[in-house]
Amino acid sequence: MPPLRTALLQSSGRPGSVAGNLKVLDEAAGRAAAAGAGLLVCPEMYLTGYAIGDDIGRLAEPADGAGAQSVAEIAARHGIAVMYGYPERDVERSEVGVPPAEGWGRIFNSAQLIGPDGDRLANYRKTHLFGCFEQQWFTPGEQPVVQAELGGIRIGMLICYDVEFPENVRAHALAGTDLLLVPTAQMHPFQFVAESVVPVRAFESQMYIAYVNRTGPEGEFEFVGLSCLASPDGATRARAGRGEELVIGEVDPGLLSASREANPYLRDRRPGLYASLI
Amino acid sequence: MPPLRTALLQSSGRPGSVAGNLKVLDEAAGRAAAAGAGLLVCPEMYLTGYAIGDDIGRLAEPADGAGAQSVAEIAARHGIAVMYGYPERDVERSEVGVPPAEGWGRIFNSAQLIGPDGDRLANYRKTHLFGCFEQQWFTPGEQPVVQAELGGIRIGMLICYDVEFPENVRAHALAGTDLLLVPTAQMHPFQFVAESVVPVRAFESQMYIAYVNRTGPEGEFEFVGLSCLASPDGATRARAGRGEELVIGEVDPGLLSASREANPYLRDRRPGLYASLI
Repeated sequence: MPPLRTALLQSSGRPGSVAGNLKVLDEAAGRAAAAGAGLLVCPEMYLTGYAIGDDIGRLAEPADGAGAQSVAEIAARHGIAVMYGYPERDVERSEVGVPPAEGWGRIFNSAQLIGPDGDRLANYRKTHLFGCFEQQWFTPGEQPVVQAELGGIRIGMLICYDVEFPENVRAHALAGTDLLLVPTAQMHPFQFVAESVVPVRAFESQMYIAYVNRTGPEGEFEFVGLSCLASPDGATRARAGRGEELVIGEVDPGLLSASREANPYLRDRRPGLYASLI
Repeated sequence: MPPLRTALLQSSGRPGSVAGNLKVLDEAAGRAAAAGAGLLVCPEMYLTGYAIGDDIGRLAEPADGAGAQSVAEIAARHGIAVMYGYPERDVERSEVGVPPAEGWGRIFNSAQLIGPDGDRLANYRKTHLFGCFEQQWFTPGEQPVVQAELGGIRIGMLICYDVEFPENVRAHALAGTDLLLVPTAQMHPFQFVAESVVPVRAFESQMYIAYVNRTGPEGEFEFVGLSCLASPDGATRARAGRGEELVIGEVDPGLLSASREANPYLRDRRPGLYASLI
């Protein structure tokens, strides 16, 4: 099976401007496709911005909303899969235009994977919300493992804080995830997560992880960049700095198989001893 | 509560010579106590050596055997707690002097904590055996969490490969372990574990971890040293090099409390989503 060249768009785009973010995405998708990438991963809440206060409610959209359609058009035009974060309005329980306290319904912190032909492949709702800001705005998702196939590789999805819990990554490993995509909004002073936790997750659960961050100041936050593609052998195959950057690395199914053979963690687990975890 | 100064004896001692290893331990306990340490941690299989082939069967002893009595005497004389690894003969099912195939009974890869007055405080049997060598010689333990109290700090115990499974450390965190002691025999080319996995375990489960390794060549193995005391804030408080070394660091209950407040992983877990892990 051929490697999947994967591009990480480390950018905060234009917080508050969906049109501005789509323009940055379009340009990055063109560059990534030209470099031979088959997949482009964007940060958490990329479509709208993260620290945008009430605009989260105003800009939230359903999984098949106008933003999703624009991303699909960009993906299809460049022939590249795109994963992006956005605030998802729960159409089952929303009344558009009414403020939260009066019944805007639930909003999820979501990420969606669009295929290279513009199809919506999978949508994931963040299960582990971080801090007061997110708990104020979002409803936690209830489905821990969401997957899709891309070029014969099993893709899994988590968002930011989710990946800091080894349980979530382990659940993906047990479900066969080969490449875990993790849009994030990782802020000072937690860069230990980007630098160390993510590569260890890839090693302990034997998968690739693409961890893609925002960058620079935004509202009360200072995002740290340091996006990376971590491989199951403990190496970091691509690593961004602190600023805006498009970094590219290879997801190699051959390396994945060899690493799983050399590091048989999933085979050597003893689930009968782990009852206290649930 | 005062900090517990903890000493890590990174040494392979004298493989095959219990008397030689006890002599090295005695000297190290004296130095550690003189430096104000209240606890000295030795590597996996320290009492006998690790790559000693058939001598494992010959030198295995019950938890209250002659070696344990010697360690207790050393601990009491220097007034310092000692944790050491050794091959434990299961007295329930052993016939001393008969080779394994003919009924030597079970041998565990164990570690024992002796208090500063020579009392045996806790004994742990490795639950996750590593590779063919260990699986040939040892029976896996069945109790995932073994703890003891020392100076008001809750001590937990794992051995080497055990700590590479996040489930095992999480079980300790949920049981209230403050300081996890991990005697190890960590070999080339797995130094990523010493360098990165151990500090991440301390951070993700919010505890101190003392990881104490053998060093240099022994039989077919090349041990990598790099023993460390990792703290729950992601820092490494003490780190040995590749050679024989006694390193010392502080386990600070105040830092532990502050770090748990700043990194509420245990509070933010969602056990209802982790059913696939067991």
